[in-house]
Amino acid sequence: MDIYECILNRRSIRHYTEKPIADDVVRRVLNAGRLAPSAVNLQPWRFIVIRSGEMRRALVECTRGGKQRQLEMGTMALVACGNERDCYQHQGNFLKTYAIDVAIALEHIMLAAAAEGLGTCWIGAFDEPAVKDLLDIPDPWRVVAMTPLGYPDESPDFKGRKPLAEIVCYEKWEEKG
Amino acid sequence: MDIYECILNRRSIRHYTEKPIADDVVRRVLNAGRLAPSAVNLQPWRFIVIRSGEMRRALVECTRGGKQRQLEMGTMALVACGNERDCYQHQGNFLKTYAIDVAIALEHIMLAAAAEGLGTCWIGAFDEPAVKDLLDIPDPWRVVAMTPLGYPDESPDFKGRKPLAEIVCYEKWEEKG
Repeated sequence: MDIYECILNRRSIRHYTEKPIADDVVRRVLNAGRLAPSAVNLQPWRFIVIRSGEMRRALVECTRGGKQRQLEMGTMALVACGNERDCYQHQGNFLKTYAIDVAIALEHIMLAAAAEGLGTCWIGAFDEPAVKDLLDIPDPWRVVAMTPLGYPDESPDFKGRKPLAEIVCYEKWEEKG
Repeated sequence: MDIYECILNRRSIRHYTEKPIADDVVRRVLNAGRLAPSAVNLQPWRFIVIRSGEMRRALVECTRGGKQRQLEMGTMALVACGNERDCYQHQGNFLKTYAIDVAIALEHIMLAAAAEGLGTCWIGAFDEPAVKDLLDIPDPWRVVAMTPLGYPDESPDFKGRKPLAEIVCYEKWEEKG
């Protein structure tokens, strides 16, 4: 699928069918994440693929208010982890890059998923220690985000976005209304 | 361009020609960022487009060792900022989402750029206060990353990546060799 079409078609999907995902599709989608760029090419990421319904129900309980039930719908969830020790940090900058690197890789996965007719949904509201405990994730790994992966059972509208004029400045910072 | 082709074709480009970029191309590429998902759809991002050669030379001086000279090559640089106050943070999680949201949007821009035959290069090694000072960027905005944007004057090989078996676990964390 064309990149622009992918970007336009991607939605946050919160309802999924039970239709299983073929192994080669899962592989292509994960491979899109594998090929992502990262600072100094350190690739400080790990993706946990969860098929077990029991495990996904437990994962839902780790989300804010136990509300992200889309994780137990469909057939699969992905948990994206970043290594906060084996990643890049320039001393003049304030950010360790693992969260950025994992975000890039996970968005590659989500765009590829959209091209395959699959739905995803960024989930960032969860109790990180509880997720680490549930999935036996050791330090120095952090849980950056998670998403369901499955065939959509809904076609939500595209949410509005700020116009370009509000988010783009030229040459220097400009205050916007 | 097909999403998988885009992902395979994207490279970190460090040499650029002086060929100008048409306004409608710049607009399409920035719009790919505008359409990115963000936590609670807050869109905590701002992109500064820098055409001035003098400004881009000054920007190079803000990078680690003044080495990221690709920012002054070609015809354009982008500086991606995130709002650390007006973004989402779930109290059970440790991350403010602005860096993740900006990373997603900037990677949309870079993938769209690849589809347009343009090159980019993630730059995260810079003196953030110096960049904020140079471009008059106020608090609570943070500089997350920057990139040149232009027509490539090189065709670098794709850098190696870890195999899928090393970065994907099933059901729970698994130690990898």
